[in-house]
Formats: sequence, C-alpha cells, structure tokens
Amino acid sequence: MSIVLGPNRYGKAETRLVRVVRDGGRHHIKDVNVSSSLSGDMAAVHLTGDNAAVLPTDTQKNTVYAFAKRHGVDQIEDFALLLARHFVEAHPTIRHARVEIEEYGWDRRGEHSFVRRGGEVRTCVVHHDADGRTTVVSGLKDLVVLNSTGSEFHGFLTDEYTTLQPTTDRVLATAVTARWRHTGGGRDYLDSYDAVRDCLVQAFAETHSLSLQQTLYAMGERALTARAEICEVRLAMPNKHHFPVDLSPFGLDNDNEVFFAADRPYGLIEGSVLREDAPDAGFAWE
Amino acid sequence: MSIVLGPNRYGKAETRLVRVVRDGGRHHIKDVNVSSSLSGDMAAVHLTGDNAAVLPTDTQKNTVYAFAKRHGVDQIEDFALLLARHFVEAHPTIRHARVEIEEYGWDRRGEHSFVRRGGEVRTCVVHHDADGRTTVVSGLKDLVVLNSTGSEFHGFLTDEYTTLQPTTDRVLATAVTARWRHTGGGRDYLDSYDAVRDCLVQAFAETHSLSLQQTLYAMGERALTARAEICEVRLAMPNKHHFPVDLSPFGLDNDNEVFFAADRPYGLIEGSVLREDAPDAGFAWE
Amino acid sequence: MSIVLGPNRYGKAETRLVRVVRDGGRHHIKDVNVSSSLSGDMAAVHLTGDNAAVLPTDTQKNTVYAFAKRHGVDQIEDFALLLARHFVEAHPTIRHARVEIEEYGWDRRGEHSFVRRGGEVRTCVVHHDADGRTTVVSGLKDLVVLNSTGSEFHGFLTDEYTTLQPTTDRVLATAVTARWRHTGGGRDYLDSYDAVRDCLVQAFAETHSLSLQQTLYAMGERALTARAEICEVRLAMPNKHHFPVDLSPFGLDNDNEVFFAADRPYGLIEGSVLREDAPDAGFAWE
Amino acid sequence: MSIVLGPNRYGKAETRLVRVVRDGGRHHIKDVNVSSSLSGDMAAVHLTGDNAAVLPTDTQKNTVYAFAKRHGVDQIEDFALLLARHFVEAHPTIRHARVEIEEYGWDRRGEHSFVRRGGEVRTCVVHHDADGRTTVVSGLKDLVVLNSTGSEFHGFLTDEYTTLQPTTDRVLATAVTARWRHTGGGRDYLDSYDAVRDCLVQAFAETHSLSLQQTLYAMGERALTARAEICEVRLAMPNKHHFPVDLSPFGLDNDNEVFFAADRPYGLIEGSVLREDAPDAGFAWE
Repeated sequence: MSIVLGPNRYGKAETRLVRVVRDGGRHHIKDVNVSSSLSGDMAAVHLTGDNAAVLPTDTQKNTVYAFAKRHGVDQIEDFALLLARHFVEAHPTIRHARVEIEEYGWDRRGEHSFVRRGGEVRTCVVHHDADGRTTVVSGLKDLVVLNSTGSEFHGFLTDEYTTLQPTTDRVLATAVTARWRHTGGGRDYLDSYDAVRDCLVQAFAETHSLSLQQTLYAMGERALTARAEICEVRLAMPNKHHFPVDLSPFGLDNDNEVFFAADRPYGLIEGSVLREDAPDAGFAWE
Repeated sequence: MSIVLGPNRYGKAETRLVRVVRDGGRHHIKDVNVSSSLSGDMAAVHLTGDNAAVLPTDTQKNTVYAFAKRHGVDQIEDFALLLARHFVEAHPTIRHARVEIEEYGWDRRGEHSFVRRGGEVRTCVVHHDADGRTTVVSGLKDLVVLNSTGSEFHGFLTDEYTTLQPTTDRVLATAVTARWRHTGGGRDYLDSYDAVRDCLVQAFAETHSLSLQQTLYAMGERALTARAEICEVRLAMPNKHHFPVDLSPFGLDNDNEVFFAADRPYGLIEGSVLREDAPDAGFAWE
Repeated sequence: MSIVLGPNRYGKAETRLVRVVRDGGRHHIKDVNVSSSLSGDMAAVHLTGDNAAVLPTDTQKNTVYAFAKRHGVDQIEDFALLLARHFVEAHPTIRHARVEIEEYGWDRRGEHSFVRRGGEVRTCVVHHDADGRTTVVSGLKDLVVLNSTGSEFHGFLTDEYTTLQPTTDRVLATAVTARWRHTGGGRDYLDSYDAVRDCLVQAFAETHSLSLQQTLYAMGERALTARAEICEVRLAMPNKHHFPVDLSPFGLDNDNEVFFAADRPYGLIEGSVLREDAPDAGFAWE
Repeated sequence: MSIVLGPNRYGKAETRLVRVVRDGGRHHIKDVNVSSSLSGDMAAVHLTGDNAAVLPTDTQKNTVYAFAKRHGVDQIEDFALLLARHFVEAHPTIRHARVEIEEYGWDRRGEHSFVRRGGEVRTCVVHHDADGRTTVVSGLKDLVVLNSTGSEFHGFLTDEYTTLQPTTDRVLATAVTARWRHTGGGRDYLDSYDAVRDCLVQAFAETHSLSLQQTLYAMGERALTARAEICEVRLAMPNKHHFPVDLSPFGLDNDNEVFFAADRPYGLIEGSVLREDAPDAGFAWE
C-alpha cells in the first residue's frame, strides 16, 4: 500500500490593492482583494521540498501590483483574466491558474474624495435618571472615506526610532466613528442627523490636510458651526494606511497610483471638539 | 479593610428589532439593535442575590418589542428616550437608564421590498489552464434583501418533529450570494454585472413566494432569460428568519408588525439554474 | 432553449445545541453546532412553490434537539450518522442527507463547572443517501501551530517580478484546517480523532521544512501511516507570514528574534494526501 | 461663542509583535498586540496642522519593535511600563502615554514548536504621565465559563411586560472580561495574573448563584481577598442564555438536558468590586 499526492494548489490570498488613476485633478479608484492559486506538477515540492517548480506567493503578489500599474484595473474579470493567463504562459511548470477578485464599491464626493459604498450605521445613546436629567448623543460608525490626494504629513517630531519619510502627497483614508451631544431634547433628529453627516463628509473631502488631527478638528468644527442644536462632537478615526508599493524592482514608477491597503497596525486619532460654553456633559458619554 | 461594591449596571444587549408599518400595500421598515442598561441601588443583588430591585433583562427586551408596537419606531433618539424614561418612571428602584440603539438603513425597491443599504461586494473567479481553456464566473455577495409581505409557506412535509405552523404571510429576508457562469470571454463585464444584479433584485421583489426555493429559481431564470452571455446561475441564500413577537401577554396584537431578527440557526437554500444546453462547466466552479 | 434546475439542496444551518448529561451531581456537557442539508426531487418546490416534498428546516432543527435528548450526543460522527440516516429513511422524497457538526471543547473545573477550551474546533461531515451509501469525514480547524526555526525556503522559480530573498531560517506558522476520510463506519471516532490530531501536530513540529507543501504532505502521510481506518487527508494551511523587522536603522541586529505577524495577504497551501488504493470518494467532499 | 479642542489622543493601534528568544536550540515565544496612545499639548496639530509636537504613529511602532529586541518581552505589564515611560521621558511635548497590550498564549510542543492555546487572552493597560504618575491594570478577556446547575433566578421585579418564569435551576454561562487595578508597580505580574485568574474561575464555579450579579461580586471579592497587590476588580459578563428546548411536542421531557445556546440578545452585567480604602483610580480606567 502506498501513499500518494492528490489534488493540490497554492497561492497568495487576499492581496489588497487600491488603484488610483489620476486624470488631471479628477481621480478614479478601484479597491479590490485579489487571490491567486496555481497548480501543475507539484510532486517534488511536496515529497522532497524541491521548490524548482514553485512560483513563490510573494512573486504572485508582486505581479498583481505590477500589472495594476502597467495595465490598470478596469473590470475585475478582465484583470483576473490577464493575471491567470500570465501565470500559465510565463511558466511551463504552472499548468493551471485560478484568480479570484472581490471589489468594494466607492461613491464619489469630490474630485479626489470618495465614500465607501457599504454605508454607515446610525447610532444614539440616551441617558435618563430619576432626577429628571436627560442626555442625548447621536452618531454614526463605519463611515469609510478616502482622499486620494490633498493630504500631507511632515514637520513631525523625530528621534532615534524615526524611519518615516515626510510626504507632501499621500492617501488619507479612515472609518469615521462620530458622536455628537445635543444641548436639549425635542429635536428633529432626522434633519439633524442628515445635516451633521453631510458636514462631516464635506469637511473631510474639502480640508487640505496636514495631519489627520487637523481633518478631525475641521470635521467637528464644521458640524458645530452649522448646527446650533449640538454642543460637542467626538470623533475616533483610524488612519487606514495605504502604502505606495515599491515598483522600482520591476522598472516601473509609482506616482501614488498603486497602493497596498494594510489591515494592522493602524494609527488611531481620537478627539473632541466642543463649544467653549457647552453645558457640562454629565453622564452623556458613559 | 473592607471590600465594597463600586459602579455597576446591567441590562439587555442587542435586542434585534424590525418594525414594519403597513400603510395599505405600501410598507415601511425600521431595522434596529437596542441595548438597555439600568442602575440604582443594587447592593442586595450583588451581596446576597436578592433580586427584588432587579427588572429582568428579559422584561427589558419585552418592553422594547411592546413599545415598538404601541408607539412605532421613528427616529431612534425618540424611541430611546421613550424607553429610558419608562424604565426610570415605572420602577422606583431604577435610578438611571441608558439606552443605546443602532440603525441599519434600507432602500426601497417596491411597495414592500427593500435592499439593505450596506451594499454588496462584486466578485469573480477566473480559471485558465495550459491547454488554453478559460472560464469566467462573475458574482456578488452580501446583497441583503427583504420582502415584508408576499411570502407564504405551507403544504410542507410533516412528521412527528413538526411544530412549524403554515403561514400565508411572512417576512422573507436573505443575504444573496450569486455566481453566474459566462459562456465565453470578451464581454462588457460591467454592463453584464449591472444587468444581472438588477434581474436578481427585481425577481426577488416581484415574485410572490410560496417557498424560498421558488424565489431562488425565479431569480436565476430571470437573469438567464435576460442575458444571453451567461449559461448558469448558482445561488446560496440563507433564510434570515424574522419571527413575529408574541405580544398577546401585553394585550397587543401583532399583525406582522414587530419582528425578532434571529442570528442562528438559519435556513440555507442553495441551487443552480442553467440552460439545458449549457456547455460543460469544467473547472469553473472549483 | 430551455432553462432547467441544476444541483440544489436546502437545510438548517448552525443549530446551536448544548447537551448536558446529569450523572448524579457530576455533569457532562457537549457543545455543538449542527447543520443539515437535504436533497431529492425538488423540482416542484423550485418551479411552482409546491412544498409537498420539503421537510421544513424548522423540523430539521427540532429533530436535532429531540435526537439529542433521546440518544444523547457522544461522538459527533455517530450523532451525524444518526441524523443523516433518519432524514433519508423517514421520508421517501429525501434522497440524500448531509450533516455537518462542529464541536467546541470544554475543560472540567468542578462537578458541574466548565471552562471553554479554545484552540481547535473538531468537525465532521457525514453523507447518507437513499441507496444506502454513507461517507464520514472527520476533521479539525483553527489549530494554530508555529515553528520558530527549522524552516527554509529557496530554490524557487524566479522571474522579473521576484523580489523575495531565499532563506535558510524562517518562522513557519499556520492555522490548520484538516479533514480526513474514513474507509467505513463503526469507528471509535474519539480514539481516531485524538490519534490523527497528534500525528498532524507531531509531523508539523518534527519536519525540517523546505516548503510548507512538504510539511503538509508529511502531516497527511504521518496520519495515513498511523491510522488504517482513514484513506485520505485534505489539508488547507495559510502561510501566516512572520516578517523579521528591519532593526538596522536603530543599530540593532535581528537574528530572527523580532517579527511582525501580518494579517494579509497570506500564502494558502491546499493539498490532498491519500492511499493509492483509496476507494472512490463519491460525495464525501461535497 | 467659540469652538475649542477637547480631550484628545493619538497613537498606533494593534502592532502585532512576536518575540522569539533563542536559548540554544530551545526557543521561547511571546505573541502580543501592542497599542499606544499619546497626548500632550496638541492644539497646533489640530488647529493648523503643525506637527512639531507629534511623534508619528510609525515611530511608535518602530519603538515597540526596537524595545522588544533590546529589552525582550517578559510580562506584558513590564513591557508596557517600559514603553509608556520612554514616550513621556523622551519627548517633552508628550505629557501622557497609555499602552495597552494583549497576549495570546502558546503551548510548547518541542524545542522550537508551539500550538496556540486558545481560551482567554491576557491583557493590560498602563498609563504614565509627565508628573510621574503611573497606573497598571491587568486583565483577561474571552474566558468562557459555564455552570450546568447551581444557578437560580427568582424574586425579581415584575410588571406588565414580565413573561419570564422564576427558576431554581438554570445554566449560567458567560464570557468573562476582567480587569484589576494594581496598587503599585514592581509586581511579579505573572504570579499575580495566575492567582487572580484562578480566583475568578474558582469563585464562578463554587458560588451557588441567585443572580449573575452575585456571582460577579463573589469573583471580585475572592480576588481582592486573596491578593493584596490589587485594589479594584472590574468585570463585564454577558449572560449567554442557554434556553431549555421545549421537547413536549415530541413526547419528551427536558430536565435541563437539551439547550439552545442563543447569540442575541444577551444580558450584560457590569460591575466594580473594590477596597473601601482603595486609592483614587486617576486615569487608570481611561
């Protein structure tokens, strides 16, 4: 009785790619998650660890990024076809390629500002106690926004652990959690919600940002200026890092067109913006 | 040195409520997640287990459902205020109530059909092999749809383990995962995607359903009829159960207005609809 | 050209069952998640919504609970077999049943107190059809293992997109999903599970690895060599990359001591190891 | 009326660090998730985008990795203290540092092979400010425990929305999140952790419970009584409902043997137990 190798495949799963096309000042983005799987005569690698037939999954990832630069990403099917054909045609040991892509939609909110289509969740927290005190905090979460330019970061503190290079052009993306405190009850909460949400999105899109903190403050300030019924806005905004991929090993430049969207770690910026004469918050934020 | 009780609270978290308002044939829905927390003089329950001051979390949940029927759910802040005031005013031992609500948005797609705002993810899987064979499967996932009426379920098999009552009016909700196989390459995949997606949503909304399987088949059939470039549609649709809450203990009827949206278990309906002369699928579905 | 129904099935997914056996003051618990899928001649329900051949998923759930009471839940494979046979034998319209169970482990902390184990989840998938054919696949998932040395990767294919450097010492980490096919029923599934799990862990730990594929094959081979009752092992193993952090900007070396554990992308290695004379798998892996 | 900046902080969240110590052929690993938050005079960065006072989150991440190499990672509290003091002492503009760490356990399976433990996650939160104040909170989360008897619930408040029946025998299950405040630094945090964890589990198992609040208090009291180095325990415990299934339609009784384990909603019990003379908590719980 002998033991043999059955069906098998290997590949790189979930390569997170954001592709920006810069059409003058008007940008277009594609946000996808690419997984490739290859197979062929893979007996040696399984039986003896001989990798001569193996195209490393790292190389598969590189190929995704290089192709995104060279060919762009329009319809995901076309991009998947391009990749699958390349893997099979470039390497005789690869007999079969499977490419799977997921695409996340974004809606435009400006020349280079976008809101992820997923859609936010509306929230509220209300307190009421036996002494008749009441507080109302409205809010939203999971509002994902991105500016593909108009964001800088430089002039920061440096020390012996600094490796970050200053930049005058980066992608700024975050998932906004916002909560705002009302000064009283009896509001038209729907009207108030729609207005505050619009302020947050517009201020994100319109602020030329030197830091995410500056953007955060501008968002809170915009809402407070526009809406008399609220007295404080609290924001928590993860800096969802989009790193430009180094394409120079492949003879390609990357003028902020091809990004790796990282999961962790992420920056986390939290802050409150309020009226100087805001009433005491009491238990509103508990 | 003695040990004492510090700040504390208790409540029911994440009561999932869907409220339907039947305005003739035109329905409106609210989909919320309600969490209440109460506090007061709770020394006894902590020190001796004396529950005399404790309003059970089960009762808090019942109150949410009964209030949804009695007062409706318009703005979440107003509904939260109503609940928080009720808990404090109804029970002297409750000194403080905190009510938190999340609301999930839905977009209308008919008189009583809705698509959850979250938005689906577009997908594709492409295979290509060294013999030049290529398959393209397009798809989507996380497309959440709901019909608030127009769905029946009766005439099913019964046995000694049957307790389900037949119904001529229920909520039908599912999160569609759909994949469709193209007969060749070189498509306009964007146009194709938009058209197939529309077929799926429309067929879901327009089918008077006697079973989720019937709806599934109608969705696949609609797409195949409309689009010559595809030859097979595979669908996986969890039956996201919405159970009408029994409000009779509170002297209230419930004409399919107040629902508990359950997480698990769920029905899971999977099926393929295809052209009789569809070419062999090969490795398309692997 | 006509449109027809293809393969289909339906069932109740994720029925969460906890079964307590009261042995005097000493209790025993089983904590499982049961999913059943049935198929047969289901044309009518898809085409006309006639449910006469449909055993409601609600009834499937009831059956799970009633059988748990009547027969107890010992090994999940035995309980799955009992359910699958019942569905097929009780109803002529049901031609095929698939039952999948996950089991979560608990450790005893007293006569009737338990702490949930964490670590891997035990799984099984059982098929039974009206022709009396039965297959049993046991398995596990979420078994996370790591070798901090003893892993190399070099000699791989290179092309213009290669940037990966060969290495003779890296961290190898993965979350094992393993499923193994039994050659027949009537096993002592607990003994079999423990032995196969030990083989997988030991082979992972003891294999000096030149590729994750080699490790995968060694794991399957070890289990097949040790256990005559199984004929095939299928493994899916993400390569959970641990990247050595470049500490040279801080004047520090990093001899594989400090790693960044990345989330995405990850390698994904999938393969089957089987006996040359293994019986046909039939529907075992569906 | 003017708008001002309120409380704020920023930092790097979820830096995933695995530290290997190579003791000849025998390796040791630490697997942690580090989040740092800094604050100080941050008006400029919010109002004008001047980053002169900002230590980039990228540098915070680098510091975590460099310190892991230079100092090793033994107890997470000690490592968090080291980092928090460094940030405040190295940079005059940073007035306050908060460092939170989660640790994932691994069990040895060889000289350099490990299996991830599952079960609970060990946590800590350390604060240190420019005035030299330091607080240390240790903790755990995802410790899932269950008593299959020895739990009652009756004598509670009733009102018109009450449908719950009193019971003298129910399953009590929860996922414990516990945090305990140390009265000073310089502890043997491993010894302390193990002892507190044992107290929590034992008190859960040994308390005949009339309410989950009573069990919560007993757990905190047990830890405080046993361990002089801690002065306050905060617990958050969801009541993971296990509902006995009604088997009477099938002619079966159910003497607390067959349960449906529900996902949502769940009770949520939160409370603090502390020494009467505990020092002021300051910013420990922020």
